[in-house]
Amino acid sequence: MQTEANVLPFTSVRSVAPIAVHTHGGRAKCLQRLIRLDLPIPETAALSFDTVHKLAEGQVLRVNSLIDNFGENALLSVRPSSEDPDWGGPGAILNIGMNEAYHARLSQTHGADAADLLYFRFVQAYALNVERLDPEFFEFDKKTPYSEALKSSLTAFEAETDEPFPQDIETQLFRVLRSMAQAWQGTTARLLRQANGAPADAGLGLVVQEMSVSVGVGECGIGVIQLVDEKTGKSLVRGKYTPQTQGRAALKCANATMPLAKDGSKISLEDKNAEIFQQLLEAAQISRARLRAEMQVEFAISNGKLSILDAVRVPFSTKALLRVSVQLAEDGIISREEAICRVPARSLTELLHPQIDPSGNREVLAQGIAASPGGAFGRIAFDSMAAQSYQAREEACILVRRETSPEDIRGMHSSVGVLTERGGVTSHAAVIARGIGIPCVVGASIRIDLKERTLTTESGETFKEGDVISLDGSTGEALNGAVAMMPPSMDKWYLKLMTWADEIRDIGVRANADTPADAAMARSFQAQGIGLCRTEHMFFEADRLTAVREMIFADSSEDRNEALSRLLPMQRSDFIELFRIMSGLPVCIRLFDPPLHEILPNDRAGAKQLAMALDRPLSDVTRRIEHLSEFNPMLGMRGVRLGITIPEIYAMQARAIFEATIESSKAGHQIEPEIMIPLISAQKEVELVKTQIDAVAATVRNETGETFNYRLGVMVETPRAALIAHKIAQHAQFISFGTNDLTQMTYGLSRDDAGRFMNEYVRQSVYPEDPFHMLDTEGVGELLRIGAERGRQTNPEVTVSLCGEHGGNPESIAFCRKAGFDYVSCSPFRVPVARLAAAQLAASDAKK
Amino acid sequence: MQTEANVLPFTSVRSVAPIAVHTHGGRAKCLQRLIRLDLPIPETAALSFDTVHKLAEGQVLRVNSLIDNFGENALLSVRPSSEDPDWGGPGAILNIGMNEAYHARLSQTHGADAADLLYFRFVQAYALNVERLDPEFFEFDKKTPYSEALKSSLTAFEAETDEPFPQDIETQLFRVLRSMAQAWQGTTARLLRQANGAPADAGLGLVVQEMSVSVGVGECGIGVIQLVDEKTGKSLVRGKYTPQTQGRAALKCANATMPLAKDGSKISLEDKNAEIFQQLLEAAQISRARLRAEMQVEFAISNGKLSILDAVRVPFSTKALLRVSVQLAEDGIISREEAICRVPARSLTELLHPQIDPSGNREVLAQGIAASPGGAFGRIAFDSMAAQSYQAREEACILVRRETSPEDIRGMHSSVGVLTERGGVTSHAAVIARGIGIPCVVGASIRIDLKERTLTTESGETFKEGDVISLDGSTGEALNGAVAMMPPSMDKWYLKLMTWADEIRDIGVRANADTPADAAMARSFQAQGIGLCRTEHMFFEADRLTAVREMIFADSSEDRNEALSRLLPMQRSDFIELFRIMSGLPVCIRLFDPPLHEILPNDRAGAKQLAMALDRPLSDVTRRIEHLSEFNPMLGMRGVRLGITIPEIYAMQARAIFEATIESSKAGHQIEPEIMIPLISAQKEVELVKTQIDAVAATVRNETGETFNYRLGVMVETPRAALIAHKIAQHAQFISFGTNDLTQMTYGLSRDDAGRFMNEYVRQSVYPEDPFHMLDTEGVGELLRIGAERGRQTNPEVTVSLCGEHGGNPESIAFCRKAGFDYVSCSPFRVPVARLAAAQLAASDAKK
Repeated sequence: MQTEANVLPFTSVRSVAPIAVHTHGGRAKCLQRLIRLDLPIPETAALSFDTVHKLAEGQVLRVNSLIDNFGENALLSVRPSSEDPDWGGPGAILNIGMNEAYHARLSQTHGADAADLLYFRFVQAYALNVERLDPEFFEFDKKTPYSEALKSSLTAFEAETDEPFPQDIETQLFRVLRSMAQAWQGTTARLLRQANGAPADAGLGLVVQEMSVSVGVGECGIGVIQLVDEKTGKSLVRGKYTPQTQGRAALKCANATMPLAKDGSKISLEDKNAEIFQQLLEAAQISRARLRAEMQVEFAISNGKLSILDAVRVPFSTKALLRVSVQLAEDGIISREEAICRVPARSLTELLHPQIDPSGNREVLAQGIAASPGGAFGRIAFDSMAAQSYQAREEACILVRRETSPEDIRGMHSSVGVLTERGGVTSHAAVIARGIGIPCVVGASIRIDLKERTLTTESGETFKEGDVISLDGSTGEALNGAVAMMPPSMDKWYLKLMTWADEIRDIGVRANADTPADAAMARSFQAQGIGLCRTEHMFFEADRLTAVREMIFADSSEDRNEALSRLLPMQRSDFIELFRIMSGLPVCIRLFDPPLHEILPNDRAGAKQLAMALDRPLSDVTRRIEHLSEFNPMLGMRGVRLGITIPEIYAMQARAIFEATIESSKAGHQIEPEIMIPLISAQKEVELVKTQIDAVAATVRNETGETFNYRLGVMVETPRAALIAHKIAQHAQFISFGTNDLTQMTYGLSRDDAGRFMNEYVRQSVYPEDPFHMLDTEGVGELLRIGAERGRQTNPEVTVSLCGEHGGNPESIAFCRKAGFDYVSCSPFRVPVARLAAAQLAASDAKK
Repeated sequence: MQTEANVLPFTSVRSVAPIAVHTHGGRAKCLQRLIRLDLPIPETAALSFDTVHKLAEGQVLRVNSLIDNFGENALLSVRPSSEDPDWGGPGAILNIGMNEAYHARLSQTHGADAADLLYFRFVQAYALNVERLDPEFFEFDKKTPYSEALKSSLTAFEAETDEPFPQDIETQLFRVLRSMAQAWQGTTARLLRQANGAPADAGLGLVVQEMSVSVGVGECGIGVIQLVDEKTGKSLVRGKYTPQTQGRAALKCANATMPLAKDGSKISLEDKNAEIFQQLLEAAQISRARLRAEMQVEFAISNGKLSILDAVRVPFSTKALLRVSVQLAEDGIISREEAICRVPARSLTELLHPQIDPSGNREVLAQGIAASPGGAFGRIAFDSMAAQSYQAREEACILVRRETSPEDIRGMHSSVGVLTERGGVTSHAAVIARGIGIPCVVGASIRIDLKERTLTTESGETFKEGDVISLDGSTGEALNGAVAMMPPSMDKWYLKLMTWADEIRDIGVRANADTPADAAMARSFQAQGIGLCRTEHMFFEADRLTAVREMIFADSSEDRNEALSRLLPMQRSDFIELFRIMSGLPVCIRLFDPPLHEILPNDRAGAKQLAMALDRPLSDVTRRIEHLSEFNPMLGMRGVRLGITIPEIYAMQARAIFEATIESSKAGHQIEPEIMIPLISAQKEVELVKTQIDAVAATVRNETGETFNYRLGVMVETPRAALIAHKIAQHAQFISFGTNDLTQMTYGLSRDDAGRFMNEYVRQSVYPEDPFHMLDTEGVGELLRIGAERGRQTNPEVTVSLCGEHGGNPESIAFCRKAGFDYVSCSPFRVPVARLAAAQLAASDAKK
């Protein structure tokens, strides 16, 4: 059949020509490296992506020279070799070359049983993968003798294909290769690998290897060995050995397998053949040291002779991968930089789940399956849109669904935890939650009424949207209210890696923290200070909120100052507490910012309460609330606009900051506070506020006779502020980009409202990603570049940073580092991710 | 007294040293030019700004050489000479040098009465201006003989100052000069001139002139002559002459004055002395021709000898100024370019008031004083904030106030007319309205209740905020509802000037027009096409709105298409009508854009009606309305976001446009429509909509067998679109900046909500101007520059324009012209202003 065809090209991995991962795949490359380490690898040939692509396209290529490469009477296996092992590939096919003649020969040398087994296995694999026949014709129970299975298979093959089983090795090999090449192009295979990050045109290489016949006389069998525990990362000799069989699948049958090293309980390979065990151990150690990774080594023993068939990286949990990477560096096998780079930064969130404090009060409202560990609390959100709205308002929420589907992913990203009525540990909700690193409880004993938007427990208690619950993803419990949390434990491997990371990191990492709890978390994660402390949250507690509202409603400066004088001591003590926790580190405090509607009561009861507090008629209060309501609160009277229109607010806050600085200093906590003005859109706004703050500082210095320093800067959230950064920087010691609002304004897109079409937009690739999750480097990023560059034009000393939620994303950090930012600030929980990601970028730059 | 002082420097205007306006002021410069034309100007000396400044600061300078300049026995006058006549200056002081000795001499030569008069006048002026004495001591009724007035004045002077009237001419002159220098520095004078555009450090020059004694024997007197009517601009000889007096004030006394030229009714100067009249006429003609402007020439006759004392530009109304400028150009005295530049572009709005159609129905609801001409209709707004909100929603409004104050100016700018309960023709409302060029009725028979926000007429009819009324500023009537309007008349002088302007203009001017009425107005003002046709307004009529709402609420594509199929013929006929009016010109149609909340009913009645139309339960409809409501509609589901999520809308609109294009073409109206996509923030949005529109075009071509062309472009309203203009321009034939929304997003400032603090912000100079009124060239303008530059990088052929409301401002036009924009588009009424302003810029560039 191949008489007029071209010859199929291949590379013997034993040859001097180096094989590249991007042309022949990782397995081929790895085998070449093992051969060069003089490990006993059977003859192996590699087919390039290009060759396999031709096969998939239907080109007929002659395989005789490939067969010749292996000499006469070789049985061959074919394995996939893709660029990244995570991208998968078709299953291995063994025993190519087996036919009646070979069977007869093998019966002589290895016994009839071995020959029957190998021939049957090949017919079965060929029928299923090459001819795509119905598997049921080729399945037999364990009691069926191999001879009978073989006979039935050959009959079934002929009956189904109207042809006898091909005896010609060229036909066998060509068709096997072609079937594997085509399998790679199948829709399911393509979708699966693209889900794992493969590009659309990812190639497949194939590895053809002479088989070591691990069935027959003498010591025969197959096994795997590795020098590490894949769950913990601890060093040990681990593996399995199954005599008289072939194929990795056989290792799954626990009855027939034995341990490798002596363990006293069960006969081991070491017991049976100490010499081979020694050879194997050495091969595994060489692989680890020279391939510079923990490898799982696949081996075969054929009549007392050891062959190494393959070696793949041991798949680790994050915790184990981290330990192994540190261990490899400590053993001198890899550099510290490499250890840093081997742990995906985002995966740290898995390690660092805060936990629910077991000593706290727990009122369990429902029990479910513990599907993703960690603890969290937040408001109930019954769908993605609600979850995204809460996130936009910077309120933590728990997504509560019957079950989740891909439409809910955005909502899950916006939530701190997920609770579902249905599903198990492999349900969509469970898988995604573990991926994101948020706690998840599935199959919980709750009933959700989506129309009424309520959740009812078994005991009949009903919760509404917005009610606060907690999740313990480690016990599978949903709890009533917000329960006490405690920070995650950080083991010595983690601490060592992060120490190394901090040594090479060249961009600062701070945390966004509004409360003492946040600050403590930030400190425990070694944030280098607070990059954004939102003061308005401090005023939303009931007693303070009333004073804030009175201040907003005050007709006279006197009334206003009276309300503010009640707020001053509370605000001062907030800062004293924060400064104590952050002692010695910078704390950047953003002045009062929220839109008016967040301050005003939004229902009749609230209005009534305010009317009483203000001693005014209710109608008066409601009229004023109506008058103050805004069409587009995001673009309304907030930030510095409030600060300039009601200057008493900022004056009070500045005083509280300065007085707290003095008191903290007396208590031994040195802080140089940073004061940040929000929502700047004009140079004059900075000048006016700066003049005012400086005056307050002078007053406080005069009153107290104490000295203190502070830095004044600007939050850049409007496109205009970025465009005129050269003017702003003349009056600012730092500029910090608030990318949440900046994204809203650059796109003309309210985060509160984007939920309605964001899914559709991302699905149609109108936006490559939701710009509120992934920094838009093209548009928003352009303003960041312009702002940083112009700011430094007039003030080379100005500190430049990013304090939006993007701050914890490795991609954003890469962007900021490249643009020369001084630091990023992110939620406390993302600080370790940011520290590691930044170190990885530095390491990768150093490598170049 | 001046023995040790420095000498006061001066320049004789007769000298060869040229006098500059910016060092000596306009009067000095003008007098030098008149002297060089050999007109009979008495000896004149000019004091520089610098010298006068020294006097004001209190420096003592010796004036004897200045006095020597005029020779012995000269009486002197001093007049102010500021850089711009509009900046004012202290009043002239005459007869310096008059004392007992001079008085005695003058009695001999000119008679006792003349001598008494001149001496008295000087004592009076000196007492008031130099010594700041109480005027009542120096006022006498007409029956008092001059001798007695003189005597009383000298006595009063001595009594009040404890010194005799100074006899020394040096003392007199120095003190007069110093008093005038100091008067220029007075607070009131400074505020007044700054209100007229003078810089804070504007200087004053002084002109000292030998007096021509216009009292005495022979033909004596003073007068003014001009060759034009200042109200209409018509050429004629106009002026007054008053024998035997001095000072311009005397001309105001009608009894004593006579006309210049023979007019048959009254004795004239020409009758009395034809020779002098001829000399005078020639002097006036020379002034006009050589000073290249219509001048008012002041003259004196002393014993039959003519002197020209001064010449100032005739102050004109806009209408007259326009005619005079055209006439001067036609007479070859000035160039056409100069004529174009002499008419302030903004002043054209005064000429171009639309009028209320007298043949329409008029239901007068109140009668008041006609305070500013023209007609308009709009919704009642009871304060500035309401007016600004209406403007933000692009709805015309009439500001209705008890009376207006400076806080209302922003609201007046946002309104199309002003109606007040109080005030007269010189009230604040009247003055400002005339300045802005909007109709105004003051002192109307209405009663305003600000608490209830109602207006009640004499007949007891009550109107609420939002009700529509009309104003006829020419008759002083307020009318019920929206009455028929007619375009203003444009006279031949206007048409000639605009023709000249269009000949040199190098940037296009189109109009924003949504309705046939707007389009007809645009065409009458010679707009070069429509730059922005907002289609959503076409859907807000009751029958259409229901179909639009049904479409928005439709669950299935079928229901949606059913609703759209009812809209298609209406939309098509809208365009056919528009294309007929704009035949031969480009029409740029913006696809459906409004935020959802503008489409949905906002009250229970509307929801009920919709429920009936949709045949659904009311609760269902209200729930969906609630679900579709947005936190920040400006940044929500609108523009292309609607277009992509509900693609059927744009498909219907494109079909309507194409079918209308074909039908119009058959009727002889050739149009190449331009289709504009609103609210773009990503390249992919353009690609998706372009693909869809192109497909609709292909379908319509196939169905009809007709060919047609169209252009597809993008409205740039988000900062991101400007930043990625190079990507957008690859798929767009034009980009048009919508500066209204772009300003909102660049500042992070909702126009609807900015009213709350904009006054305060402008008052404190936080923003130099309201950026919604005056294009912010620093921030928003930077995005315009970036967008235009980047767009042209990838598509040098792309048409770049501005279609926000800023389009009609001369400052914005200057900006766009400099940035190389192809055209600006503004409201029809602003088109003439834009055309003229653009021509002025071209003329001014050509001059450089």
